[in-house]
Amino acid sequence: MNASARPLRIGFIGLGIMGRSMAGHILAAGHDLHVYSRTRAKAEDLLQRGAHWCESPGEVAARSEVVITMVGLPSDVEQVYFEVRGILQSMRAGTLLVDMTTSSPALAARIAEAARAKGCGALDAPVSGGDIGARDAKLSIMVGGAQRDFDAALPVLRLMGSNIVLQGGAGAGQHTKMCNQIVIASTIVGVAEGIAYARRAGLDARTVLQSIGGGAASGFQLNVLGARMIEGDFAPGFFVEHFLKDLGIALGEASRMGLQLPGLELARSLYERLAARGGARDGTQALLKLYAD
Amino acid sequence: MNASARPLRIGFIGLGIMGRSMAGHILAAGHDLHVYSRTRAKAEDLLQRGAHWCESPGEVAARSEVVITMVGLPSDVEQVYFEVRGILQSMRAGTLLVDMTTSSPALAARIAEAARAKGCGALDAPVSGGDIGARDAKLSIMVGGAQRDFDAALPVLRLMGSNIVLQGGAGAGQHTKMCNQIVIASTIVGVAEGIAYARRAGLDARTVLQSIGGGAASGFQLNVLGARMIEGDFAPGFFVEHFLKDLGIALGEASRMGLQLPGLELARSLYERLAARGGARDGTQALLKLYAD
Repeated sequence: MNASARPLRIGFIGLGIMGRSMAGHILAAGHDLHVYSRTRAKAEDLLQRGAHWCESPGEVAARSEVVITMVGLPSDVEQVYFEVRGILQSMRAGTLLVDMTTSSPALAARIAEAARAKGCGALDAPVSGGDIGARDAKLSIMVGGAQRDFDAALPVLRLMGSNIVLQGGAGAGQHTKMCNQIVIASTIVGVAEGIAYARRAGLDARTVLQSIGGGAASGFQLNVLGARMIEGDFAPGFFVEHFLKDLGIALGEASRMGLQLPGLELARSLYERLAARGGARDGTQALLKLYAD
Repeated sequence: MNASARPLRIGFIGLGIMGRSMAGHILAAGHDLHVYSRTRAKAEDLLQRGAHWCESPGEVAARSEVVITMVGLPSDVEQVYFEVRGILQSMRAGTLLVDMTTSSPALAARIAEAARAKGCGALDAPVSGGDIGARDAKLSIMVGGAQRDFDAALPVLRLMGSNIVLQGGAGAGQHTKMCNQIVIASTIVGVAEGIAYARRAGLDARTVLQSIGGGAASGFQLNVLGARMIEGDFAPGFFVEHFLKDLGIALGEASRMGLQLPGLELARSLYERLAARGGARDGTQALLKLYAD
């Protein structure tokens, strides 16, 4: 780590594929890392490298100056923060909380309010970039919260991401992540429909991509996920069931704000059909399967 | 022009913004250019630079070894090729016909068949890249037809485009262009919905673009047209009414092939609403206006 910075006591809760990579960067930078995950086996590698195991989210919070959470659903976030012996009950004043789960903006605001009432700061800081971005510390981190807390967290966030932007107050990071998912949702529908059309018209979809992959249709979804669709590679970069979670949060927020998003509604209905057909653990590019009938 | 190639007698029919640029490159390369457009004023600049005016599409065809058409609607294409004293009636055997209009694959096949019956070759070769791509000779040109005709046309097509791909037989160029428009249609819906959500949530959409513009949502539609949406710049790069023409062709073809494209159907219904509200001559990024209510 930077020689001028003192090692911090950092807690990390949630050691899935992304969480493990992210926590590993913190450990490698020389910080004192305290970890908890529902499945202890997922912590083994970090423990062998010097991380300390805790028996609960509350124990992590009691030992840490900065607590990072990277769990699954909003209900998991709610549990680790609000449960008895959870983070909010066990932390000391002055602790900085950073939820990096993609979760609901309203829940982020509740956590921030509860933290403030106990003399702590809280940030919502969901990410994009997937497991590769997590592994390479190249995540885009979208942050909501107070400028002061953002500044305090920045040296730690920089260990995990390369594009770190404060988007506004509590919840603004989650809202920004929802914008990302909303754009992706309809884009991938367009990519799947374009490739399905190409095949039905008797074209070679690979050759089509040579013509259309550099112009106004170009982008990550066409050039990366579209190429996987064409190869029949439906392995998850991002699970359909996780995408459905995000689309549900976005539609709930849009509805609360009185905003109609017909493209997003359509994308969710298509992904629900895909999941109902057994595709929940496919990658999002498996949407193409719906057009093969 | 390349010193080893002899000047050709080339006809160009349709001198809109793109056609004028494209014809200008052919003239600049030293070819003998014969032009016709419904509005003669649009040819003035080319005539001053040495192009020859013709009074009809048929006169262009009678004088040319290669005839290029770049008109508006499929009905315009049908007219210039099939009318009395049109291209097909007036051309000599051995003429090569190249329709660069975005038009229907079925019409492309009809032209190719009629051309073959008269000892001529025909290509459908629609483009993407817009007025800037036309001006800079950087168009993507998607070609359908016979390999021999493609090879013969290539030196001329290279004067206008930088990515020129033979996609298959007659109509394959038009089908490929439809793939491009299908991907774009749902993508721009996603971009408009993401930006509308950002604003409704109280975010600064410019700052949101800093977070999401480099990852899985990134692409031409978000990074170029989304940025114009955010600035309130709805000036046409590509007219809504032309996009609606293309979406109509694509949906007609999909229906003929028994392929359901719900994302494309939704995009068309949204653009029809926009056009009905007076947005037909806006750029496609004006879709954002629908979400401002």
